[in-house]
Amino acid sequence: MEPWQFTATEAIAQFKNGSLTIEHYARSLLARIAKRDDAVKAWAYLDPDYVIEQAKKLDEVPPEKRGLLHGVAIAVKDVIYTKDMPTQFNSPIYEGDAPKVDAASIITLRHAGALILGKTTTTEFASTTYGGKTSNAHDSTRTPGGSSSGSGAAVGDFQAPIGLGTQTGGSTIRPGSYNGIYAFKPTWNSISREGQKIYSLLFDTLGFYARSVEDLQLLADVFALEDDQPVKEPFEIKGAKFALLKTTVWPQVGPGTIAAMEHGANILRSHGAEVDEIELPPEFSEAPEFHRILLHSEGRVSFLPEYRTAKEQLHPFLIGHVDNEHNISRAAQLKAFDGMAALRPKIDEIAGRYAAIVTPSVPDVAPVGLVTTGTAAFNSIWTAFHTPVTNIPGFKGEADMPIGLSLVAPRYHDRHLLAVSKAVGSIFEAEGGWKRNNI
Amino acid sequence: MEPWQFTATEAIAQFKNGSLTIEHYARSLLARIAKRDDAVKAWAYLDPDYVIEQAKKLDEVPPEKRGLLHGVAIAVKDVIYTKDMPTQFNSPIYEGDAPKVDAASIITLRHAGALILGKTTTTEFASTTYGGKTSNAHDSTRTPGGSSSGSGAAVGDFQAPIGLGTQTGGSTIRPGSYNGIYAFKPTWNSISREGQKIYSLLFDTLGFYARSVEDLQLLADVFALEDDQPVKEPFEIKGAKFALLKTTVWPQVGPGTIAAMEHGANILRSHGAEVDEIELPPEFSEAPEFHRILLHSEGRVSFLPEYRTAKEQLHPFLIGHVDNEHNISRAAQLKAFDGMAALRPKIDEIAGRYAAIVTPSVPDVAPVGLVTTGTAAFNSIWTAFHTPVTNIPGFKGEADMPIGLSLVAPRYHDRHLLAVSKAVGSIFEAEGGWKRNNI
Repeated sequence: MEPWQFTATEAIAQFKNGSLTIEHYARSLLARIAKRDDAVKAWAYLDPDYVIEQAKKLDEVPPEKRGLLHGVAIAVKDVIYTKDMPTQFNSPIYEGDAPKVDAASIITLRHAGALILGKTTTTEFASTTYGGKTSNAHDSTRTPGGSSSGSGAAVGDFQAPIGLGTQTGGSTIRPGSYNGIYAFKPTWNSISREGQKIYSLLFDTLGFYARSVEDLQLLADVFALEDDQPVKEPFEIKGAKFALLKTTVWPQVGPGTIAAMEHGANILRSHGAEVDEIELPPEFSEAPEFHRILLHSEGRVSFLPEYRTAKEQLHPFLIGHVDNEHNISRAAQLKAFDGMAALRPKIDEIAGRYAAIVTPSVPDVAPVGLVTTGTAAFNSIWTAFHTPVTNIPGFKGEADMPIGLSLVAPRYHDRHLLAVSKAVGSIFEAEGGWKRNNI
Repeated sequence: MEPWQFTATEAIAQFKNGSLTIEHYARSLLARIAKRDDAVKAWAYLDPDYVIEQAKKLDEVPPEKRGLLHGVAIAVKDVIYTKDMPTQFNSPIYEGDAPKVDAASIITLRHAGALILGKTTTTEFASTTYGGKTSNAHDSTRTPGGSSSGSGAAVGDFQAPIGLGTQTGGSTIRPGSYNGIYAFKPTWNSISREGQKIYSLLFDTLGFYARSVEDLQLLADVFALEDDQPVKEPFEIKGAKFALLKTTVWPQVGPGTIAAMEHGANILRSHGAEVDEIELPPEFSEAPEFHRILLHSEGRVSFLPEYRTAKEQLHPFLIGHVDNEHNISRAAQLKAFDGMAALRPKIDEIAGRYAAIVTPSVPDVAPVGLVTTGTAAFNSIWTAFHTPVTNIPGFKGEADMPIGLSLVAPRYHDRHLLAVSKAVGSIFEAEGGWKRNNI
C-alpha cells in the first residue's frame, strides 16, 4: 500500500510507529496528484516545494509536541483563508489575492499539526452551480459536484485523505455522494466560520471529507465537537430504529437514488434494524422555499461590496441577488426566517426518535458534463434546519458511478451521528455494491 | 466653525461647493486629535501622514466620480479588517497583525469615498467589559463605555464625524449614550459582517456613530438599507404613538435614566405624541438569560483557535467560554436559540404598534473610572431580537454628563426608525437639557 492510499488515521499510525516520515508521505501524495491532475484538476493552488518544506518542518517536531492531526495532509476549499497561500474564491475579482490571515478552522488545524496541501476548486464564492475545470474522481467526463468541487474530487481520488468543504445548500454532501466518499456537515456554528467567505450567515457551514468515518471523528475531536450525552461505540445496528424519508422533492429523484434508498433500507433491516418510512408533517412543505428566500436575501447583503466595486466581474446569478431580482420583501424574508426557526425544534424532535433519518444525498449519480455541478434539492432543508448530516457512500448507479445516502440527526448530536455513520458505513460499503476502482 | 466640527453631511456640502478641500479637512481633524489625544486616547492606530496622503488622492477625484461619502473621515473599530492598517482586536495575540484584507463594510465605505482615519480602541475582541486606555469624550475620569470605546469617544469628541462600532450586547448603544452622540444598530445581518471578528454569529452587528441623524441616513444609503415601505419625511411627532418600556432590568436603573425616561416622555407628549407605558408579556422574561446562554455558547466556538494556540494571552472571561465554565448544555443552548427565535416575530408585532419603543440605553451616565466599560443590561435583548435600535442623546445626568434613550422598531424598519429618530432627536437635543460642551 502506498502512503497516498492511507486514510488520515492510517497515516498517523505509520508516523507514530516510525515507518513513515511526513516528507515521504507528502512526496507520495504529490506524486499521486502529479499523475492524476490532468484528469481531475482539483487544485486552485498547490506549490509542491512549499508542501515538502512544511512536511520537513513537521518531521522535526518531537513526538510529545505533536497534535492530533500531526502530519496529515488536508485539502482546503478555496473560500477559506490561508495565510501562506492565495484565496481566490474562483472569482476574477480576487485573482491572486493572498491576505496574510488564517481562517479559524485553519488556525485550529495547523495547531493540531495538519499539513495544508493546497487550495481546491470551488464554484464562484461557493455560491453558484456553474462548474469549473474540475472533474469527478471516478469519471473525468462527469461533474464532481459543487461547490466544494476540488475537495470532494481530491479526497475521492486519493490526492488527499481529508478535505475541507463548506455547505450553504448541498455543497458538502453532494460532492461527497458524487465522488464516493464520506462527507460530514456538522451542526451550524458548532465550528467557527471566521475567515470563510460569507454567502449566507444563517446557512454556511464548514464541512469535511474523508474516506473513513474514523477520520471524521478525528476531525470532530480537533474541533471539539461535543454532544450532551457521551456516545457509546460501536453503535449497534441490531435493534436500532431508522427513518426512511423521501421528502417533498422526491419527484426529482432518479433510478440510482431510488435503488440506493431501497437497497440501504434492506441492508439495515437485514442487520436487525427497524426501518420506518416516514413523511414530514405538512408544515414542513414550505422549508425548501424558505431556504431559497433566505439564500437570496442573505446573498443580497453578502455580495454588495463586489457588486459596488466590480459588478462586471460578478456572476449574473449573484448580481441578481443584490438587485433583489425576485422582489423578495422584508416581510417574506422574515416569514421565512421565523418559519424556518420554528421548524428546527420540530425536526429535532422527529429525528430524535430514530438512530438517524436516512434520506437522499442527491437525485442520482454525478451527471455527465462539467457545466453544472448539480442540484442541492435534497440537501438544502437540512442545511437550513442546522442539523448534522453525513453522506455514506457504498451504492452504485449508472455507469458504475458511486451514490451515497444521507444520515441526519438532531442538532448537536454530531458525535452520535458519526458513531451511527461508522456502523452504517461499514455495512453500506460492504454490501451496497460500489467499490472504489481508482486505486 | 472649524472643519473638525462638521458633521459628515456638512463636510460633504463644503467639499461640493468648493470651499473646503479634503486635505484641509483631514488636517483640521488631525489637529483636533493631536490636541485631544492625551485626554481621550481613542486610537489604536493612526498614521497622520497616511491620512494626508489618502486625503490628497481623494481631492484628485473628479466630482462625477465621487461617491456618497467622498472625503468624509471615519473612525473604524479595531475589530474590523482594513488592508492598509493593523487590526489588533486589543489582544496581545494579534499585536501588530496586519492582514492585507478589507472587511465588507470597509470595501463599501472606500467605494463610497470614505477617508479611513484610523483604528479605534475596543475591549479585547469586542467581547469583554474590561476597559482600556480610552476616556469619555466629556470627562477623562470616566469610561467611554465599550466595547466600541474608541469610536464612541472619537465621534463624541469631534475627532471624527462618523465611526464604526459593533454590538453583541450593548457595545454600540452604550458608548453612544455615554459620549452624547447618535448610535445606530441596524437590523441583524442587514449589512455584511464579513471581516469583522466573530464573537457571536447570532448577535454581532455592525453599528454606526454620528452627531446627526442625517449622517446615519447617509450611512444607511451607502449600505443599501431598505424597508418594505418607503419612509415619509419629516416624521410627524404630533399624533404619533410611542411606547415607554422599562423592561425587566429596570431595577438596575439609576437616577439619570429615571429622569431621562420621564423627561423624554413629557417632551414627546408636549409635542402632541401619545406615550403609553407598556410591559412585555411574561414570556419575554427569559430573554436576558437566553442572550447570556447563547453568548457564552457561541463564544465557546469563536475563541477555540486562540484558546488552542495562545491561551495564556486570552482573557480569563473568554477562556471560561471555551471551557464552558457554566456547564451550559446543548439542550439549554437550543432552548435559548429556539426560544429567542420564537420571541422575534412577537416583539416585531408589539413594536409595530408604535412609531418606536422608547427604552433605556444605559442604567445611568458613564461611571467614573476606566476599569470597566459598564453593563449591556438594557441593550442585550434588542441585540438578540435583531431589531434596529438608535441611541438619541439630549439628556443630562450627574455631573452634567450626557445620557441618551433608545428607540426600537421592528426588524427591517431601519429607515423608519431613522426618520423617527431624526424627529425625536431634534426635540430631545433642544429640550432635554444636555449640550455638547467640548467644542
